[in-house]
This record gives sequence, structure tokens and C-alpha cells, in this order.
Amino acid sequence: MSIRYPNGKAYTPVNKDRHQSKKQNSSISYGNRGMSLEEDINSTNEYYLAKGIAVIHKKPTPLQIVKVDYPKRSAAVVREAYFQQASTTDYNGVFNGKYIDFEAKETKNKTSFPLKNFHKHQIEHMRQVLLQDGICFTLLRFSVTDEVFLLDATHLCSYWEVQEKARKSIPKTEIESLGHHIPLGLYPRIDYLSIVKSIYFS
Amino acid sequence: MSIRYPNGKAYTPVNKDRHQSKKQNSSISYGNRGMSLEEDINSTNEYYLAKGIAVIHKKPTPLQIVKVDYPKRSAAVVREAYFQQASTTDYNGVFNGKYIDFEAKETKNKTSFPLKNFHKHQIEHMRQVLLQDGICFTLLRFSVTDEVFLLDATHLCSYWEVQEKARKSIPKTEIESLGHHIPLGLYPRIDYLSIVKSIYFS
Repeated sequence: MSIRYPNGKAYTPVNKDRHQSKKQNSSISYGNRGMSLEEDINSTNEYYLAKGIAVIHKKPTPLQIVKVDYPKRSAAVVREAYFQQASTTDYNGVFNGKYIDFEAKETKNKTSFPLKNFHKHQIEHMRQVLLQDGICFTLLRFSVTDEVFLLDATHLCSYWEVQEKARKSIPKTEIESLGHHIPLGLYPRIDYLSIVKSIYFS
Repeated sequence: MSIRYPNGKAYTPVNKDRHQSKKQNSSISYGNRGMSLEEDINSTNEYYLAKGIAVIHKKPTPLQIVKVDYPKRSAAVVREAYFQQASTTDYNGVFNGKYIDFEAKETKNKTSFPLKNFHKHQIEHMRQVLLQDGICFTLLRFSVTDEVFLLDATHLCSYWEVQEKARKSIPKTEIESLGHHIPLGLYPRIDYLSIVKSIYFS
């Protein structure tokens, strides 16, 4: 079943997404064993929480609720609701007193990361966070090679600004040079806070 | 229509809530003109965002989506979803680089604030945020007198701990002495960050 946001952007329920990427990546994935990026990050955040390293959560999907049934003796059921475009990034939280804010995206492209993966509101939100001295970045995954990079939001915002005039994607070579490669592990799977610590806390 | 969470806690859609409190408070409210606490805070956060003072948002209500219809040529419609208990507080964001996290609650009680307004997961989340040196508090509103107080999460957590043995609410006199009264205004309506600045940034 194909589900789309009002803006035409595809919506994939979390569970389905997991199974899909498991299938798609089964022949080429090794480091993260075919999990989706979202699942890897959620698992990493659970690890950080359990170890007392950081408190970082994914925000719920925003829905406009129109109709709710309340059958007697059972739970309320939402019968009509619509997806709303998120006005912020998906993840935020606290690490050593500092505010952490990021968006995670993956592409099947091999040589560049398409900017269409982000929408205007998210870029605007990142700019606002940067102005407040928040730590703000993106986690970019090249799914074919299973490589994950941390790219500071300032670079993403710069590319976003020039995209009208120039190319609508960030070359991988640029991500490799401006960003930071995150080695994949098992526990935690994507230890992005080690990189955050070395960049923003040194 | 009465809507309840799976745990039996009532759910009130935002718009209905606004109208309800408008009616309920019309005879006694003055400072905030009968708006609900949530509306006042959202409006305050919009003010902070517009003025570049802080980036603080309310998290969407968490829903477990079970069934989605995708009618051709129109937006996806969620046809079956269930309310999930939030695992965090409702509001978080960044102010001068620091992580801000809070929960806002109101009571019709005049002399104490019932602890049943909070649930265990939220208290647990507040403890985790405090351990990460995040700024964490509650905004408590006594709706009859239209008074709003900021109470640091450490105090709430302490009261929560002893509630099994002792009273299940915080006396208003204690909130007045441990907390900070927030004068109500028009723009912004509840200027809690002025208080935050004086407490946590001095």
C-alpha cells in the first residue's frame, strides 16, 4: 500500500520500512545488518539513555486529528487524521547540558546526496537552532555502501541556499571532506555522539 | 464526546480544550483572557521564535498508526490509530545553547497541586534530563486565580518520591516558596524565559 503525505511525499510506517530495508539490503549490508537508519538511531539513542550518556528522542509524527471514536470499555480510536509536515527536525535532546538537534536521511545514490530529502521548514528550523548556539547536524547514510556521515547543519544550509542556482545535491566527495565518517558498530550501532564530542566539545 | 487514553486518562483535543477553558474561565480569568495554558505557552513560544530569543516547540501527540487509506488524488487518511503515553515531557528546545525541557499543567485546586497530573514516565524523563545538566522544570497554573509558577524539576521529583508515604499533592505555599511566580503579560503571555534566565543563567 502506498501512503503519501499531502505534499506528495511518501509515508512509510516504521515497521514496514524495517522489513523493506531488510530485504533491499540483505545482499550488500553488513555493518548494520540491514536495519533502517531510523531503527539504528533509535537503538543507539536507547543505548545512550540506558548508559546515562544522553537523553535524545525521536519526535512523534505530527497528525491532525479530526475524528475520534470512544467505544465503551476499550481504548479511544482515532478514525480520521491527516499527516502534517513536521516543522522541526526529527531528533532532539540533551548531551552534557548542550542542546542536540538533528535530522537523519539516507539515499541510494552513490556519488551525491539529493537535497530533496530535506524540506524548507527543516532547513529554517536548523538555522534557528544554530542562532541559539544549539548543536545541529544531519546524519547522512549512503545505503549502498552503508556509510554514515555527520554533516554540520551550517554546511547543509549553505548547500540549500545555492541549490536554486547550482546543483540540487551535495557531492559525496564534499560530504567526505566537510563531514565526519561515523564507524558502524554493534552496540551502539551508530555512535554519533563520539563524533559530536570530538567536534563540539573540544 | 469523551476521549480517553488507554490508561483511562482523558484526552482533550486542542481546539475543544480552548473553547472549554474559555467558557469555564470567562467569569474569573483576566490576565490571560481565558486561553488554555497550552495555548498561552504555544503563543509565548511563537513570540520567542519570531524574536530570535529561543527555539522551543511542543512535541506532537504520540499515536500508534494501524491503518491508513490512500484515496487517489487526495491526502492520505489515518483510519485507525491509538493514543500512546508520552515517554517524555511536552516541550523542549534550546535557549542560549542550553537545553530546555518542561511540562505544563493546570489545576482547579486552590491550595495544592495534585501529583496525579504527572505520570511516572515523565518524572523518569525529568530525572534523566537533570543528570545531563539540562534545564528542566514545570509550569504550574492555578486556574481559579490565574497564577503560573515555575518549579524546578528537582522539587517535583522530590515530592513525587515521597508521595507514596505522604500527601499526593504539593501545597501551594510550598510552590510559592520553592518556585517562582511568573507575571502574566500580553506579548508574550507567559514570559517563563525571563525567570529561566534569572535562575539558571546568573
